[in-house]
Amino acid sequence: MAAVGPGLVKTLIIGAAGMIGRKLAAQLAAEEPILHDVVPFDGASAVSDLSAPGEAEKLVASRPQVIFHLAAVVSGEAEADFEKGYRVNLDGTRRLFEAIRKENYRPRVVFASSIAVFGAPFPEAIGDEFLNAPLTSYGTQKAIGELLLSDYSRRGFFDGIGIRLPTICVRPGKPNKAASGFFSGILREPLNGEEAVLPVPDTVRHWFASPRAAIAFLLHASKINTEQLGARRNLSMPGISATVAEQIAALRKVAGDKAVQLIRREPDPAIMRIVEGWPRNFDARRALELGFRADSSFEEIIRIHVADELQKSPRPQPGRG
Amino acid sequence: MAAVGPGLVKTLIIGAAGMIGRKLAAQLAAEEPILHDVVPFDGASAVSDLSAPGEAEKLVASRPQVIFHLAAVVSGEAEADFEKGYRVNLDGTRRLFEAIRKENYRPRVVFASSIAVFGAPFPEAIGDEFLNAPLTSYGTQKAIGELLLSDYSRRGFFDGIGIRLPTICVRPGKPNKAASGFFSGILREPLNGEEAVLPVPDTVRHWFASPRAAIAFLLHASKINTEQLGARRNLSMPGISATVAEQIAALRKVAGDKAVQLIRREPDPAIMRIVEGWPRNFDARRALELGFRADSSFEEIIRIHVADELQKSPRPQPGRG
Repeated sequence: MAAVGPGLVKTLIIGAAGMIGRKLAAQLAAEEPILHDVVPFDGASAVSDLSAPGEAEKLVASRPQVIFHLAAVVSGEAEADFEKGYRVNLDGTRRLFEAIRKENYRPRVVFASSIAVFGAPFPEAIGDEFLNAPLTSYGTQKAIGELLLSDYSRRGFFDGIGIRLPTICVRPGKPNKAASGFFSGILREPLNGEEAVLPVPDTVRHWFASPRAAIAFLLHASKINTEQLGARRNLSMPGISATVAEQIAALRKVAGDKAVQLIRREPDPAIMRIVEGWPRNFDARRALELGFRADSSFEEIIRIHVADELQKSPRPQPGRG
Repeated sequence: MAAVGPGLVKTLIIGAAGMIGRKLAAQLAAEEPILHDVVPFDGASAVSDLSAPGEAEKLVASRPQVIFHLAAVVSGEAEADFEKGYRVNLDGTRRLFEAIRKENYRPRVVFASSIAVFGAPFPEAIGDEFLNAPLTSYGTQKAIGELLLSDYSRRGFFDGIGIRLPTICVRPGKPNKAASGFFSGILREPLNGEEAVLPVPDTVRHWFASPRAAIAFLLHASKINTEQLGARRNLSMPGISATVAEQIAALRKVAGDKAVQLIRREPDPAIMRIVEGWPRNFDARRALELGFRADSSFEEIIRIHVADELQKSPRPQPGRG
């Protein structure tokens, strides 16, 4: 485990090898966070399976004051492998929460939840009192994590906050197993001069945040006065609602027609069916009132990708998270 | 295990020693249901701890076509004993669902959920799309059971339906550990010529169903065409919304002033605080459309108690469920 200097907040990032985890770790480098994942990675402080007995206890033994829990089997994989999804996403989360309860201190726990806790049919915009009716095992596991987080917080075992991240776009690196991958692919690949496949119609609407916005949400959640939350500790994050057509229009503004022409339309009924069950738009009033801030436009989301990923290094890093 | 004759639906009742379980078993006597509970009771087919490894598998091995899952540690006890509540209400339910999945047949599962999955603040009437934000560990465990039930049903492991029972009133027998006990006590005790304590103001409003209505909900849920449910397999049941004043007025109509005078007002701030977080009224549109029927009035609720409990046997049975 990393040593923590005087005055620093002892921070633990679980799921630190993922895309968001790496960016969060970079942002918090001065705090020397403890970095954990199930796979070995550069800069790791601890590598273990959180869902295996005893591992969560070891992670929590040093009593980190802030714990970011980002680790999860993603939606496609949790759907393909029922047992693995429940083991990692439900049992892993519960073991972590139990380890904190038994360690008997009261850290801040920031839980990365997902808009996958919601399932169609939806209202025009999903408000803060709309039911969780997930249509995937991944969404079910995140919704259960949210319920546990609220109850453990109410009981005083830790001071939790769950944030439902929009679909992260533009996701750097290679596609992961999430069915939402094309939302990033149709931008990322053309920006790299490569072809991309669009499996759904241009009219499909979805809910987005840049990686920069996501990191800002996590950091804000780690510092917020949770007394403002009352008993409802899980919040839908603000984002940008955009259709595929609007995504493409923004790409044209940033990178011109040549980039747009690299998008190949190849309708995929299976992906279309999945995407139909996904949220399109939110009224994230509570999060906005609590100071969480979305990107300003879809064009900004693309410009952030260009600034953070392409102007630094022309080659995409291998992605995982 | 009970043998099942030809043409009968092989039925399993888990939690069969409880008040609802006993009434349901009596109603289904002709089907010779398998009766299970963790405590020994008259007529038991199986007594075991569902949350212990291997027990759920044994229960499910005979492949009952209809499984009623009524077993739970009640709200007061789940709040007082955190570990027991999660072990019985969450792990027990999950072990049952896992055992069914592994047995690889597709029974109807009727899960007794609760309005405790909801927590204040509430709208005027709680609709079918209102969020689950429980304020107790019991409510959290029931909400998690609902999520699992939906996901296991969506996956095709069983054909589940969760029904959120209103507070059952008039509850026969002795008070159990539920904080809602006084809602029945202020009627049951005076009807027996005994004093009862009312710990909350007359203006408190709550949501009720008679035991008869609850049994009818369970039976209807066991036979309904679940294709009508879509992916949302958990339903708030219809009920009667009544204030304590309205309860007392109904008692006066049925049993006169002498009964009402046996209610002693003894405000209890702890119970008042708990009750403030409870649902008062519902708009249970989906359940009504699906043919679930509430009692017709609070007066009917009292008359059902008189007919089913007092005219049969003047002495209350010891209650547990």
